Amino acid sequence: MFVGIGLMPHGNPVLEPPDEETERLAEVLRRIGEEFRKADSYVLISPHNVRMSDHLGVVMAEHLVSWLGFEGKELPGEWETDRELAEEIYRTEKDARMPVVDLNFASLRGEYSRWPLSWGELIPLQFLEKKPLVLITPSRGVSRETLIRFGEVLGEVLEKDAKKIALIISADHGHGHDENGPYGKVKESEIYDRLIMELINENRLEELPEVPEDLVKKALVDSYWQMLIMLGTMRKAEFELKASAYACPTYFGMAGALWVRK
Amino acid sequence: MFVGIGLMPHGNPVLEPPDEETERLAEVLRRIGEEFRKADSYVLISPHNVRMSDHLGVVMAEHLVSWLGFEGKELPGEWETDRELAEEIYRTEKDARMPVVDLNFASLRGEYSRWPLSWGELIPLQFLEKKPLVLITPSRGVSRETLIRFGEVLGEVLEKDAKKIALIISADHGHGHDENGPYGKVKESEIYDRLIMELINENRLEELPEVPEDLVKKALVDSYWQMLIMLGTMRKAEFELKASAYACPTYFGMAGALWVRK
Repeated sequence: MFVGIGLMPHGNPVLEPPDEETERLAEVLRRIGEEFRKADSYVLISPHNVRMSDHLGVVMAEHLVSWLGFEGKELPGEWETDRELAEEIYRTEKDARMPVVDLNFASLRGEYSRWPLSWGELIPLQFLEKKPLVLITPSRGVSRETLIRFGEVLGEVLEKDAKKIALIISADHGHGHDENGPYGKVKESEIYDRLIMELINENRLEELPEVPEDLVKKALVDSYWQMLIMLGTMRKAEFELKASAYACPTYFGMAGALWVRK
Repeated sequence: MFVGIGLMPHGNPVLEPPDEETERLAEVLRRIGEEFRKADSYVLISPHNVRMSDHLGVVMAEHLVSWLGFEGKELPGEWETDRELAEEIYRTEKDARMPVVDLNFASLRGEYSRWPLSWGELIPLQFLEKKPLVLITPSRGVSRETLIRFGEVLGEVLEKDAKKIALIISADHGHGHDENGPYGKVKESEIYDRLIMELINENRLEELPEVPEDLVKKALVDSYWQMLIMLGTMRKAEFELKASAYACPTYFGMAGALWVRK
């Protein structure tokens, strides 16, 4: 059963909030963790793991191992893949003719079947009780329709499963919020982030596919593709927004949102 | 220009040969390293990196970082991807409609564009002077014809390139050579390994596609698919076998062979 969705940022500042806004965001992330203590497994979609131009990936490797922190922030740890669920998702997506690959490493089973994690996964995982998970990687070169359809198929799999499964979307938004930041200040980052928070808070996520391509590109986001997958999954059950917050303590926008199954 | 091919094992024993046979194999590996000091870049095909059921992979990540040793044998180090060559290979294989994905990690460029290496790459790399390389992953679920065709396309790319490029095939053979080993003793491992050495030494590699599927499976090999790719590349230039050796100091067979451009 598909029990809920957490939209979670992966920026270091949520670990040690430098201001009140970020502290309120961290509070939402802790609430996501609290809510999903009831889950048996997570599905985690992250944009900072494997990146393929035109295929999504489902990680089959058994052991998920901390490997790469951002700006020196190391977050050691090891998680286990819910292999049964990973295989079910991969098989069902393949049957639905989605452009997806299964990803293993070194060995197909056992201690050497390992997979590296980056800050894209490690930061959300800091707020979540340790449980088995399935790591999925989105793709920017796949059409919007396909990403949504991938999400619909994923939602059906989660819904049918006997276990309680929570979906975690790792995403940061506009990266052009600071003229001294690595991407400078671009007005589209502010426009995109404001729009995303409106769509979340006003229950208008069905408008997500209409966001202009030009805005997504210029806003320098890290969220749009996995949010389209999320939208697809949301069509497979009824969810209620329980909490949301936004903060931008440095050059990129971060959002947290918790939806629970009605 | 495609300057030569090294078939290299990835078993720990070649690092500290326990017997004369393995020492002779290590000598061939050192000779491969010596020969390819003249190369500008390597293309390395390894079966112990990413493993996908039905797609080959071309690693685009800029930094290739030691991550996973076998039986505790850690071989630290970092190598750089020849990104230009990686892109050329990926694009040409895609244009030829090969089932291939480009593989990046975390970031598309820069210090965070990193990729983990296992013993499958690290052991051959111990014998090779450090140079930029392109890491390619084979796939067992792709047809023999497609693997050979992938190799033909790869051979054309290497041949056309202005740089001198050597192809390294990381492969171990039958894994059922010891009744006390993890897979026990199976006669097919001995049959397969003997056959492979005959095909190499008698210049009969064109017979490789005729090896029965049943023999490949029962022999528990780790070499067949990347050797089919190698066969495809060999059709694109004339090569001469300069050295070969076989050793089986533990439960799996290891072969080394050096072909240089005529």
